[in-house]
Amino acid sequence: MIYFDNSATTRPYEEVVQTFASVSRQFFANPSSLHSKGGEAERLLNKARQNIASYLGAEPSEVIFTSGGTEGNNIAIKGTALAHKERGMHLITTMAEHASVYETFHYLETIGYSVTYLPVYPNGQISLEDLEKSITNQTTLVSILHVNNETGVIQPVEDIGKILAAHPKIVYHVDHVQGVGKVPLGLKGANIDLCTISGHKFHGLKGTGALFVRNGITLSPLFTGGEQEGRVRAGTENVAGIVSLAKAMRMTLDEAKEKREMLQEIQAYLMDALSSVEGIKINTPVNGTAPHILNFSVEGIKPEVFIHTLEEKDIFVSTRSACSSKKAGPSRVLLSMGVNESLASSAIRISLSFDNTINEAEMAVNAIKSAVKNLREVMR
Amino acid sequence: MIYFDNSATTRPYEEVVQTFASVSRQFFANPSSLHSKGGEAERLLNKARQNIASYLGAEPSEVIFTSGGTEGNNIAIKGTALAHKERGMHLITTMAEHASVYETFHYLETIGYSVTYLPVYPNGQISLEDLEKSITNQTTLVSILHVNNETGVIQPVEDIGKILAAHPKIVYHVDHVQGVGKVPLGLKGANIDLCTISGHKFHGLKGTGALFVRNGITLSPLFTGGEQEGRVRAGTENVAGIVSLAKAMRMTLDEAKEKREMLQEIQAYLMDALSSVEGIKINTPVNGTAPHILNFSVEGIKPEVFIHTLEEKDIFVSTRSACSSKKAGPSRVLLSMGVNESLASSAIRISLSFDNTINEAEMAVNAIKSAVKNLREVMR
Repeated sequence: MIYFDNSATTRPYEEVVQTFASVSRQFFANPSSLHSKGGEAERLLNKARQNIASYLGAEPSEVIFTSGGTEGNNIAIKGTALAHKERGMHLITTMAEHASVYETFHYLETIGYSVTYLPVYPNGQISLEDLEKSITNQTTLVSILHVNNETGVIQPVEDIGKILAAHPKIVYHVDHVQGVGKVPLGLKGANIDLCTISGHKFHGLKGTGALFVRNGITLSPLFTGGEQEGRVRAGTENVAGIVSLAKAMRMTLDEAKEKREMLQEIQAYLMDALSSVEGIKINTPVNGTAPHILNFSVEGIKPEVFIHTLEEKDIFVSTRSACSSKKAGPSRVLLSMGVNESLASSAIRISLSFDNTINEAEMAVNAIKSAVKNLREVMR
Repeated sequence: MIYFDNSATTRPYEEVVQTFASVSRQFFANPSSLHSKGGEAERLLNKARQNIASYLGAEPSEVIFTSGGTEGNNIAIKGTALAHKERGMHLITTMAEHASVYETFHYLETIGYSVTYLPVYPNGQISLEDLEKSITNQTTLVSILHVNNETGVIQPVEDIGKILAAHPKIVYHVDHVQGVGKVPLGLKGANIDLCTISGHKFHGLKGTGALFVRNGITLSPLFTGGEQEGRVRAGTENVAGIVSLAKAMRMTLDEAKEKREMLQEIQAYLMDALSSVEGIKINTPVNGTAPHILNFSVEGIKPEVFIHTLEEKDIFVSTRSACSSKKAGPSRVLLSMGVNESLASSAIRISLSFDNTINEAEMAVNAIKSAVKNLREVMR
């Protein structure tokens, strides 16, 4: 199997699965229980929090655990908007966000908030000037996707942070879900207040994630109840999931040191090889992108058909975000970059992980070339 | 180890841990992905949904998966209150709810809702007459705890359902978290619209749970984003967790058939043996309670001290709800039943599972007797 759908989800590390299983067996007590079995579970939880904080360059008190990226983004955005309603009801994001951000802003519009969706340009990035102009004295939140999940485009989150440093009352959220291990991000240096990560995007388990909440930032919780996670996220902590998240993050960051360059090589090879195929148009810009995502369109071919053709050769790619994959019609993200409707309706995403090899990429290129050729002949 | 803190959390079945691990390894793809690996994961997800629906006597379309009881209760309560805001802003619950319900209603009060907290009587139950009187034409939701997590008291949820049948516009939510496998509940017969369950309370894994949402009931989602879970709960599904939840539920319901009576015997033995101990006052009523919870007060002894004394004999009990265990002061639930402040501040909860034996109960009774004797001598 050549698995090229790693932005949808990754295969969990075997060590991560084993960690989850052994913590579930041996430390099953509720970390809120007052007895020593509860205390043991609580210590494991705290250790995982310390570790993740150190990987993020944060304090342990700045990490809360979630069930994944969608929850993290929802807590960050709704939690800020609701907590600071009295101060203002204007919010800023971009046209090219993941559904869990984009739809959340749409929801906030239905309850009275006003949202600026910054346009992105053909390189996929927003303009800093547009951002500066959109800020009002009613703005409470700016939420920006670090690495675009469909195209790999990196937004200039550090530069955005510099602009926002002059607006200390605006909360700055970054969706870092696709960036972990792929595109390093210094939270404190970039002046980030809230940052979402999701375990299953870096060989962790589904149902695990974390939200960085800078000390001093107030959020209105989505889950009220017990006093867990600094009262920002009530509910019995998924201790085994949390420990496995810390494990996955450490392993990913360790691997990244040696393997990030390899991803870049595979991506460059794919971009080069595919751009010369007749009928293929590369949507991922050459510069300013993450090393693991390559988006291209196969003119005139339905992406579902293309996916199934590759699948017959045991190669697994995707159309767009898995969370939006069942939507019909063109990709909103590609349209926002100025890609035309026909190309935005026939996009294919290859997304890599450290498990992939250049050899797989070569096999995939051959399979893609022959699929394009055969399908285009059929269509004629 | 004698583990008597099963209402805080249970030890997961070994088969459940293994199911989680093997699904994580073999079916790691994103169920929303359009390729066949996504399709395989989606089929597993659907099968788990069918199974849980059948255990609940529901349709598969009536089951959505959550990260646990707190999330389920929050979606049910906030989701109903927000979705039906135009119809009315009056909500009804009880004084003796779990924190994830009680605090959620308090939150809704802060944003303009009016909430009736029905009193409970010395038997721990509400009065049906009180309920009927509290209903107004602005009422949109009644939320009732099936089995109280501190005392084991069962609310008359079927009788409440009969009353609410005359008010078809009122949504009826039952928190069944402590009931699964312990106190059977027919959702359709009881006219229930929403019902929360949590995996780790019946030997499943933390981070797993489900919410029954009767067909036709509209909820405002807490997580917006992708189209998963009928758009009520966006986010990549925790497939391995969901399959493990179905496994835990089937094993629990199978075990319950033969072992529910055994729980009753252990509980009756404990109640009988402890009620004759000087200084112990049993708070769990003799009738109308679940078979797995026994709450008693040890007059004049701090419960933390008592817990640690038992722990030295490898016996693990708790004070109150784990979610509220770090709060100081008397138990709100016991106060609501008319227990005085001193007794409500010295309460101990024993909570059983099918793993416990009468032999363990005998050892615990001896340990409790000697702990009470020694601690009371020290206090004199």
